[in-house]
Amino acid sequence: MKLPKELLLGLIPEHMLDRGLIVLEETLLKPIKILLEQRKLPKEGWNDDTIRLLLKILSSMDTDKDPKAARIGEREARVASPLISELAAGFVHGVGRSGVLIDPQPKAAGGSLMYQIANRLSEDILKKFGVENIKGAYILPLATGMSISLTLKVARDITGGRDVIYPRIDHKSPLNAISLVGLHPKIIPCKLDGDTVVSDPNEIEAAINGQTAAILTTTTFFPPRQADNVIAIAKIAKEKGIPHIINNAYGVQSPKIMKMIRSAIFKGRVDAIIQSTDKNFLCPIGGSIIASSDENFLRKVAHSYAGRATAGPVVQFLAAVLSLGENRYKELIQQQQNCYSLLKDLLGNLAEKFGERLLEVDHPIAIAMTITKPRIAHEIGAKLYTSRVTGPRGLPKPDSTFGTCYDEYPTQYLTINASIGVEETDIRSTVERLEKLLKKIPLS
Amino acid sequence: MKLPKELLLGLIPEHMLDRGLIVLEETLLKPIKILLEQRKLPKEGWNDDTIRLLLKILSSMDTDKDPKAARIGEREARVASPLISELAAGFVHGVGRSGVLIDPQPKAAGGSLMYQIANRLSEDILKKFGVENIKGAYILPLATGMSISLTLKVARDITGGRDVIYPRIDHKSPLNAISLVGLHPKIIPCKLDGDTVVSDPNEIEAAINGQTAAILTTTTFFPPRQADNVIAIAKIAKEKGIPHIINNAYGVQSPKIMKMIRSAIFKGRVDAIIQSTDKNFLCPIGGSIIASSDENFLRKVAHSYAGRATAGPVVQFLAAVLSLGENRYKELIQQQQNCYSLLKDLLGNLAEKFGERLLEVDHPIAIAMTITKPRIAHEIGAKLYTSRVTGPRGLPKPDSTFGTCYDEYPTQYLTINASIGVEETDIRSTVERLEKLLKKIPLS
Amino acid sequence: MKLPKELLLGLIPEHMLDRGLIVLEETLLKPIKILLEQRKLPKEGWNDDTIRLLLKILSSMDTDKDPKAARIGEREARVASPLISELAAGFVHGVGRSGVLIDPQPKAAGGSLMYQIANRLSEDILKKFGVENIKGAYILPLATGMSISLTLKVARDITGGRDVIYPRIDHKSPLNAISLVGLHPKIIPCKLDGDTVVSDPNEIEAAINGQTAAILTTTTFFPPRQADNVIAIAKIAKEKGIPHIINNAYGVQSPKIMKMIRSAIFKGRVDAIIQSTDKNFLCPIGGSIIASSDENFLRKVAHSYAGRATAGPVVQFLAAVLSLGENRYKELIQQQQNCYSLLKDLLGNLAEKFGERLLEVDHPIAIAMTITKPRIAHEIGAKLYTSRVTGPRGLPKPDSTFGTCYDEYPTQYLTINASIGVEETDIRSTVERLEKLLKKIPLS
Amino acid sequence: MKLPKELLLGLIPEHMLDRGLIVLEETLLKPIKILLEQRKLPKEGWNDDTIRLLLKILSSMDTDKDPKAARIGEREARVASPLISELAAGFVHGVGRSGVLIDPQPKAAGGSLMYQIANRLSEDILKKFGVENIKGAYILPLATGMSISLTLKVARDITGGRDVIYPRIDHKSPLNAISLVGLHPKIIPCKLDGDTVVSDPNEIEAAINGQTAAILTTTTFFPPRQADNVIAIAKIAKEKGIPHIINNAYGVQSPKIMKMIRSAIFKGRVDAIIQSTDKNFLCPIGGSIIASSDENFLRKVAHSYAGRATAGPVVQFLAAVLSLGENRYKELIQQQQNCYSLLKDLLGNLAEKFGERLLEVDHPIAIAMTITKPRIAHEIGAKLYTSRVTGPRGLPKPDSTFGTCYDEYPTQYLTINASIGVEETDIRSTVERLEKLLKKIPLS
Repeated sequence: MKLPKELLLGLIPEHMLDRGLIVLEETLLKPIKILLEQRKLPKEGWNDDTIRLLLKILSSMDTDKDPKAARIGEREARVASPLISELAAGFVHGVGRSGVLIDPQPKAAGGSLMYQIANRLSEDILKKFGVENIKGAYILPLATGMSISLTLKVARDITGGRDVIYPRIDHKSPLNAISLVGLHPKIIPCKLDGDTVVSDPNEIEAAINGQTAAILTTTTFFPPRQADNVIAIAKIAKEKGIPHIINNAYGVQSPKIMKMIRSAIFKGRVDAIIQSTDKNFLCPIGGSIIASSDENFLRKVAHSYAGRATAGPVVQFLAAVLSLGENRYKELIQQQQNCYSLLKDLLGNLAEKFGERLLEVDHPIAIAMTITKPRIAHEIGAKLYTSRVTGPRGLPKPDSTFGTCYDEYPTQYLTINASIGVEETDIRSTVERLEKLLKKIPLS
Repeated sequence: MKLPKELLLGLIPEHMLDRGLIVLEETLLKPIKILLEQRKLPKEGWNDDTIRLLLKILSSMDTDKDPKAARIGEREARVASPLISELAAGFVHGVGRSGVLIDPQPKAAGGSLMYQIANRLSEDILKKFGVENIKGAYILPLATGMSISLTLKVARDITGGRDVIYPRIDHKSPLNAISLVGLHPKIIPCKLDGDTVVSDPNEIEAAINGQTAAILTTTTFFPPRQADNVIAIAKIAKEKGIPHIINNAYGVQSPKIMKMIRSAIFKGRVDAIIQSTDKNFLCPIGGSIIASSDENFLRKVAHSYAGRATAGPVVQFLAAVLSLGENRYKELIQQQQNCYSLLKDLLGNLAEKFGERLLEVDHPIAIAMTITKPRIAHEIGAKLYTSRVTGPRGLPKPDSTFGTCYDEYPTQYLTINASIGVEETDIRSTVERLEKLLKKIPLS
Repeated sequence: MKLPKELLLGLIPEHMLDRGLIVLEETLLKPIKILLEQRKLPKEGWNDDTIRLLLKILSSMDTDKDPKAARIGEREARVASPLISELAAGFVHGVGRSGVLIDPQPKAAGGSLMYQIANRLSEDILKKFGVENIKGAYILPLATGMSISLTLKVARDITGGRDVIYPRIDHKSPLNAISLVGLHPKIIPCKLDGDTVVSDPNEIEAAINGQTAAILTTTTFFPPRQADNVIAIAKIAKEKGIPHIINNAYGVQSPKIMKMIRSAIFKGRVDAIIQSTDKNFLCPIGGSIIASSDENFLRKVAHSYAGRATAGPVVQFLAAVLSLGENRYKELIQQQQNCYSLLKDLLGNLAEKFGERLLEVDHPIAIAMTITKPRIAHEIGAKLYTSRVTGPRGLPKPDSTFGTCYDEYPTQYLTINASIGVEETDIRSTVERLEKLLKKIPLS
Repeated sequence: MKLPKELLLGLIPEHMLDRGLIVLEETLLKPIKILLEQRKLPKEGWNDDTIRLLLKILSSMDTDKDPKAARIGEREARVASPLISELAAGFVHGVGRSGVLIDPQPKAAGGSLMYQIANRLSEDILKKFGVENIKGAYILPLATGMSISLTLKVARDITGGRDVIYPRIDHKSPLNAISLVGLHPKIIPCKLDGDTVVSDPNEIEAAINGQTAAILTTTTFFPPRQADNVIAIAKIAKEKGIPHIINNAYGVQSPKIMKMIRSAIFKGRVDAIIQSTDKNFLCPIGGSIIASSDENFLRKVAHSYAGRATAGPVVQFLAAVLSLGENRYKELIQQQQNCYSLLKDLLGNLAEKFGERLLEVDHPIAIAMTITKPRIAHEIGAKLYTSRVTGPRGLPKPDSTFGTCYDEYPTQYLTINASIGVEETDIRSTVERLEKLLKKIPLS
């Protein structure tokens, strides 16, 4: 990974050449060399050109780039035009082998290296940001929900059970995930603790029986729903010998949640932790990371994917974390916390001004504010969309309590996230636009 | 979709401007207009620039491009750097909604349009190339095997059965697919008919019972395994009221197979037909098309995906078929047939010269040649890899008959594909390199 | 310049479509429409995607993009590969016609429009930033020096003279420029006014005679050389009927210099003002803008270029000013002034600390500091290069006074620029590295 | 220029890694290594990715890529946005130094290397394709006409003369070139030899006197004008001691013309040969190559450019010839000759059918056909433009004989080129469209 000086001698004065080679080295070649040697998240983020070069080098190792190859399989990663290959960043063979997703693909040395490196970084970034007691991690080019499915399938095969104990979260994807693998959700109702909607570990324990295939807990959902107490539940899972899957969709950004998961692994049983790549790492939607303290479990999950998968979410994750580096990710976490505080202040003032109040929930990312009639929460949510505010949720919806995780939550409310990557302007203009809406509907 | 002439008047002479506008219209804008109006596969393929412009226009409609948006959800498709968005061709929100994969995503008007258009084209291309009696089709950004899983899940829920009747195909992905959704493969052994390994519809019929969740048939596998008789099996499925899923992995390229499926739909029951996007349409690995004559079944499959999915395989498919157009796809089918004939001739000659023979199997894409001891088939396969030939399979492997679809196939053999996109040089150089290997191991 | 809504109806819900079309309009299409209508520098800078779209639309109007064209000239802008066209942003025909650089090229409607638009913007930006009394301007894809040559050629043909009166500036390019067109520099020596090296309008007036072809003045050179008094000289030029060319290489960034030129035009004679595109507008090196209050003179200069020219510097200028917009250019001017003040403070402190002082020169962009023996100015310059500081000049060089514009300037000095685009970190780290060097050579 | 295997060990099986490294080496790294070692035109053309990598490596050596640089000059190649740098392929510093165009630029080690390499290739390609007796060559990012100017400037300074002896060519650019440097064209009228318009070396000799600065000859112009007899003229130039400049605009594609120039150098005096990069090497308009058998003359020309120049035409030339390689350039020459023959046949038949005939002129690239009244040649040219045929010229124009190189050429005519890069379809559709036009205007 060096441009030998002797190749360039005699073209320009040597002191200029030396200077040029230093810049080339430092900005382009050295970061790649260090990455390949260490296979860890770099301290400093890379510039886009360096990332492009890494991807180009790796994708140039695949057989579809070999002009001397004779390609006579039924699947040779041929492309209709150069653009088509470009749309896959050159990794046209996807990732994995027919039987095992994480196994190297003989036609794609480069794609396989890329996947390995991305997986190493996925493990490293989780360790660096809180759960250093995992034993491995890799990226699944699948939605978080689908990845949960794969883990539940493994739990099902281990236990032979048919139910998934599921402290109530009103989100369709995990329910789909349970259903896909032929299991049944055994939903544990939540309780109200002040404003907060919480699950009760005792009830979870009580629900376990011979039919139990797994416990599926959740760390991140909208307030007033709070994270499940994964430490207590992990202990129960350990005692009872039940696989425990944690849906940690966007929890990596929260040092508090990550610390909680670390303790759960330490003190109890955690078979798999699944997190979204896009919700945590500023990359396009489509991938998730599965991590575990049990390498065997991880390997079984990889055996459950049927076929070779698109490389896209893997490449995108890899590029995103190389772009961020450890330092910028730390800054982003700090920025998330600052924006959260700002949101709390601004929204608190707004609430007071308009006869509402913030719900008291211990939630590191989102905040909920009451909405009092004649104001209608879900209408305010819809109007915010028209005002070009994306993301807020006004609950309950007209005909259902789905979304609140509780059958008769005492008030309507609106949730707003200050999640990783959010900027001060997002917070401020949301509150401003919300203010305009509230003004139009005075409380009396 | 027009650049108004009046915007440009007064800058250059009008006759030049007219000429320029004609070129702009014809090469760039008109194809896009026609596509949006008709939502059909274009007759003529597009150039890459036109495809890029379409993708840019569509992706520019998503909320992440809106500088006036206030983005305060937990998932806002933020990206770590411009490269990251570029790696997703700008479609950073993925496709689908939490509950239903094919539903429009409010944060991604453009991405949703893109997905809809791609789906229309997927339906149209299947209709134009042989199965005009389907009622709908869409792209799943999943491996063929995973897509089979989703269909089996729906079949399972409809029937309440637990077995999948599966005429033996020695391929891991479909077995994984069956297992993922908690079903059990009921493998129907094949018979030998001359050289050919075939399944027997009568045995399939005989295997059906109250536990049957679905029949999973296959149209494309390596010779000597022949396609299942999907027409006869579809009739049985209809009579018995059993869901019938066809794994048509790389069958779109074969007019004969497509015609057979068309008849199966016409005469019997076919709940879903799944085909690989990459194996048929020269695009990167990672997607599949599910089609059906039953819109209701299709919709249920879309409800089974848990979460939002990566847009990558969808964009890649869309770009690939726009690049091809109807005419070039026809040419590619013709070229496949020519290469197949060439392969038959060259390989036939080679076999004769070296004391081998071609297996007599009715297969539209691949050919198998006997390998006689002391030659070892799987070693020849491995040596071809080292000779930079990718794709051939030497069977059986040392310790297993898996791959042959038959317990005691009377001879070793090597399979070679002339699949869509293959070029004459691939065929010729494969046979040449194989000749070199065979020379080294004379039969006596 | 609109995507008609009816083309997209029926694919996604109408309220999403409306939202998507708004984003598309506002971010991508509307800025282009407004530019084409108004042909002025936009208030707000554009994002790169919008610029790319404009370039793509325009370049798609050229005949080389026309698949129905029959191209049988000796020069048809054919390219060896797609990359080659990409390297020219699609504008492969260059700009101009054989005889006249600014005339539309029939084979390149799009390239010609692009050049016209760029020229309008070059005129507009000069007017907006200080010289609203010019009558026209256009971009020459030539170095500033070469552009000066073209203007001197016109002056030569008008006057029939053979000398260029040239208040001494020690810069090779203008001297080359004079020599290229067969003229002779009549160098007017500078005077010392305190620390400042200045030219004397009276001496210029005295030098005019029947052989005078033109006066070439300069607004921007390193201190201690100050700008020529172009107002006084323009008055002389007017009185004596001598063409007056102003080399305003990097003066656009200075409101003060621009105001001075405006007065010169108002009160005297200015035939042409030449400015570098890269030194003023953050774009790659290679272009210049020629402006004039005399349209006739401008047209004659365009007749002087021999052949068709590369479009590169034109496209780059266009893209750069669209990217900047009026507002960001104003901010950059402000930032330049802030950095200048910072440099003055930091360098002043440094000088004091190390027994040096700043030269007292009225210069809006650069500052000079004395260098006292045993310190050797040009060695310090060389060492700064090795310390990765680019741009400072240590004068005089060992064997020549060239560079100082004065035969026996009383002290050595080092010049440092705070020119447009410079950032605080450049200033700070320059002063830090300089401090390290000075420490090593104490004055006594 | 190697990716060390040890950096990648342990991620994928070693035999796959080996295979991947071979592909990487052969397709991407080795061609670059060989180019840098040999600095010659490669035998085989490169793919675009390899070219991109070379450009990226080189441009990454420039100081603007150095994040540790402190940039405090007045010209630091800053850019307004990433797109702006991309538009220059990263070579934002241009080429050359203020005084000398071909000298390395300290701020741009990479750009300087790029220019050096491009220059070596320009020399090598001229040598390989016919004029192996040149001593050097380099690229001027200037139109051919402007480059002629620079050479005439040097000739002017050497001789002190004021006239350029110029065998009549009716082309504006060279006349502009002569005028720019303050010289006067002494136009030598042509003679008629059958259909052919030719210059007479004897008249050229007779025109030489004490005022002669240079002889400017031409190898390529439209028929019926034939190439000047540069061999005879070179001999005269040598005898009389007059600088001789050859305008070889698009002559590189003709082995015959190149051989003639080689003889001219061998037998006489040739100070400079100028060729267009775009007309010969399938790259965008904007550059020229100057070659000479006199290194000293070449160096003086480089001293004549005033300032630093755009790197664009240099990069584009480099990319184009790397894309072509020696082999494809040979093929293109062959294809030009085939197309020329085809054009002769088709146009000959057409002429006969419509009462016209081909002019008998010895011209390797273009053919002229008579146009007889009532047909009007220049109107036919204009109509062909409307029919989307670009390049043909109908002469004379209404009010002038300019273009014919002869005062009273006996017939009207239309010229059509079969120049390098032309394809059979261009020829065929031109003749077809011309036929339609001729049909509408029968001769009687």
